[in-house]
Amino acid sequence: MEIRIDYNNMMQAALGEKGISDVEIEAYAKRAKAAFDAVINNRGKGMQGWMELMYNQSDIVREINECALNIRENFDNFVVLGIGGSALGPIAVFQALKHPYFNELTASKRNAPRFYVLDNVDPERMNALFDIIDVKRTMFNVISKSGATSETMSQYLIVDNLLREKLGKEAHRHIIATTDKSKGNLIKLAHTNEYKTFYIPDGVGGRFSEICPVGLLPAAVLGIDIAKLLEGCAKMDKRCSSFDLRHNPALITAVLQSIAMDKGRNISVMMPYADSLKYIADWYCQLWGESLGKAVDKNNNVVNRGQTPTKSLGVTDQHSQIQLYTEGPFDKVITFIEVERFRSKLEIPVRCEDFPDVNFLCGHDMGELLNTELKATKYSLCKAQKMNYSIILPEVNENTLGQLLYLFMMQTAYCGELLEIDTYNQPGVEEGKNATYALFGRKGYETKREELSNAKAPSKEYTA
Amino acid sequence: MEIRIDYNNMMQAALGEKGISDVEIEAYAKRAKAAFDAVINNRGKGMQGWMELMYNQSDIVREINECALNIRENFDNFVVLGIGGSALGPIAVFQALKHPYFNELTASKRNAPRFYVLDNVDPERMNALFDIIDVKRTMFNVISKSGATSETMSQYLIVDNLLREKLGKEAHRHIIATTDKSKGNLIKLAHTNEYKTFYIPDGVGGRFSEICPVGLLPAAVLGIDIAKLLEGCAKMDKRCSSFDLRHNPALITAVLQSIAMDKGRNISVMMPYADSLKYIADWYCQLWGESLGKAVDKNNNVVNRGQTPTKSLGVTDQHSQIQLYTEGPFDKVITFIEVERFRSKLEIPVRCEDFPDVNFLCGHDMGELLNTELKATKYSLCKAQKMNYSIILPEVNENTLGQLLYLFMMQTAYCGELLEIDTYNQPGVEEGKNATYALFGRKGYETKREELSNAKAPSKEYTA
Repeated sequence: MEIRIDYNNMMQAALGEKGISDVEIEAYAKRAKAAFDAVINNRGKGMQGWMELMYNQSDIVREINECALNIRENFDNFVVLGIGGSALGPIAVFQALKHPYFNELTASKRNAPRFYVLDNVDPERMNALFDIIDVKRTMFNVISKSGATSETMSQYLIVDNLLREKLGKEAHRHIIATTDKSKGNLIKLAHTNEYKTFYIPDGVGGRFSEICPVGLLPAAVLGIDIAKLLEGCAKMDKRCSSFDLRHNPALITAVLQSIAMDKGRNISVMMPYADSLKYIADWYCQLWGESLGKAVDKNNNVVNRGQTPTKSLGVTDQHSQIQLYTEGPFDKVITFIEVERFRSKLEIPVRCEDFPDVNFLCGHDMGELLNTELKATKYSLCKAQKMNYSIILPEVNENTLGQLLYLFMMQTAYCGELLEIDTYNQPGVEEGKNATYALFGRKGYETKREELSNAKAPSKEYTA
Repeated sequence: MEIRIDYNNMMQAALGEKGISDVEIEAYAKRAKAAFDAVINNRGKGMQGWMELMYNQSDIVREINECALNIRENFDNFVVLGIGGSALGPIAVFQALKHPYFNELTASKRNAPRFYVLDNVDPERMNALFDIIDVKRTMFNVISKSGATSETMSQYLIVDNLLREKLGKEAHRHIIATTDKSKGNLIKLAHTNEYKTFYIPDGVGGRFSEICPVGLLPAAVLGIDIAKLLEGCAKMDKRCSSFDLRHNPALITAVLQSIAMDKGRNISVMMPYADSLKYIADWYCQLWGESLGKAVDKNNNVVNRGQTPTKSLGVTDQHSQIQLYTEGPFDKVITFIEVERFRSKLEIPVRCEDFPDVNFLCGHDMGELLNTELKATKYSLCKAQKMNYSIILPEVNENTLGQLLYLFMMQTAYCGELLEIDTYNQPGVEEGKNATYALFGRKGYETKREELSNAKAPSKEYTA
């Protein structure tokens, strides 16, 4: 069961002069080949370790599944402490494959612990979580490669303290650390406190980590078949590893986005038409934004590149964003994610014969209404000459979801090469981190602290 | 307790050449005055009925509170059937003012029904809702001004059918209709079936409807003090109704956004630093996107205006979007929403003396960490010359939330006048609606159906 790409609505045949021509794609052939070579030749090397995760984790998958079974049998709640890639992937996969109101189901219907992800340092939300979970019945999964992520380590310190108060010497049985095998605080704390550990392999950055233990453990605890998820990734890997531009789903969409950026489309809207895929858009926003948003290219020229990802949900946001997408500026590419078969049906009953503007709905299935609205939306966007393309999933399951995740990672990798930037670094977040350290008086950041206090004080006249 | 605006980081004093100068603001004075006059002189007229809602609803507030009390005493669940403005406002206010895991609290801790909003036609999610609620213990609030909203009416037909099956003649006691007083299907259905009704006043469009019964009834059911919410709106109305550009929070921020758009900032990032305000950003995205995204101006010139709103959450999205915001293109304005005092505290325990890169956190409150990271993020954005401004709430409560909602509505109204477009229409969604009608074979849409089938069929060669 393969996912498919339909990019007719990016092209001049559909959009007229606002579309992309075959000639423009051909003109990209050489750059596309170079990008292809750079990605494929570096498979598994440097920060491209994520490209091997489908093939080198069979022992880990076994260990994760054993651990997950134990957690499912012995705990009521499973809480991820993590932020960024450590949170977005687990949330996206959970929402895609489990019941939409999972935590409100009875234990027997869930057949797995309730699932929470703490991905912020908001005191109100963290306190609120303790209102609804019994920590004595909860497993916490602390995820940080460096063990120095301020937000995650703060959460960890609070949870560890609470567990020690409630459970004394048994506290360590309620924490699993997912971190680097040898470096950083968290692995040291894990050894000292005898936590169960899983490792984040070298060459796997946060936003590419969903298919390593970062994402696989939470998924397995929820009863998701992680082997099938990885099979889906491998299936897509195969399609994205042969140089046939028009039939390599990641390469052709990377080229299209790159041409669109050349034409001033600085916004990438990710718009799934299925509630289950809503959080895939959040995960994508990190992957696309953090990977491609770079000040300098590989030759250190200042380029300030990047296309701003934004998330939308069909049909819901037809009543919020489609007015703008249809009539507003020619500044965006809209990626629809379409699901052909929903996992359940719901017929709109035949009533309302007296109301023609409602009656036409009767007798149809809700999924049919949803997909008809998608079709209509594509049609109206094309009439307005707005670029859009579709990723089509026959249905949502472990395998197609694995394909989808891997497609986006490969598209990002190719697009980074096309833009000639470093896809895998994030130097732009360092300044803020250092400023936080300085403001909190961390040792070694005295100079930065001075810089901050010397910084021209805001004039304060600009207030209202 | 007043919310405040700090726009120092929009100005040249903070950003150098990438900032806005006092001269540029002065040059807008005449247009600002015209926009101010247009909005203020039309208060209560045409589609500006929303500007009177703080002053003309005392009887309605009383009726809503009585009805809400009855619902709180007699129902376990309260479900909104609505989409767009009928969903986004109720969700935003619920998340801002109630417990973050409200539906998972015990009944006695909740002291109000569980709360759900069905804002899509996804069959999986709607079926899932029926797994967790007993419709016999549920009140449904159907919200649609026209009574012709396909999504909402589909939901209504399904719910109505189910209620009749389970409850027979008592079914109508489980539905409240919020709709137009005299026009449309829903008011007719309400009369025929004897539903309790609330009215959406004339001059109040969907995205401006949160402070009419659309939003007030759900809020009151949840135990939110809606009179205080309206008081907050009135307080902000006063500040936004005097022509002192520099001290009118809505007018000055509308002018700043307008100047920013002139300078190529086509993206508006809404980034609250509080989990409770996360969904305010969703509500804002509809308001800003649908109001300002217009193909033609008031003189019918093709302009394709609009600034694309996108939502972000601090500190969470520092680990997703800040890399792009800091290093990427100069194409956005970031609006921070800052909360000075959180409603609860949570201290990071003193441990980890051996780990300097974690130890510096110990002894601090989580809210302090969150706001320090916000400060650091502003600092690093300024160093990168990226435009940002802050809306500061002393704390989140009914009054400050009312101020915030009203501020955004007024800012949008002023900005629409500055852009010289019709803030209140949404012609761009008609094409898609009509195409849906045609595809579903609705009578009267035969011509559109023909147009659709004659439309050049996608070549299909553009697939992968």
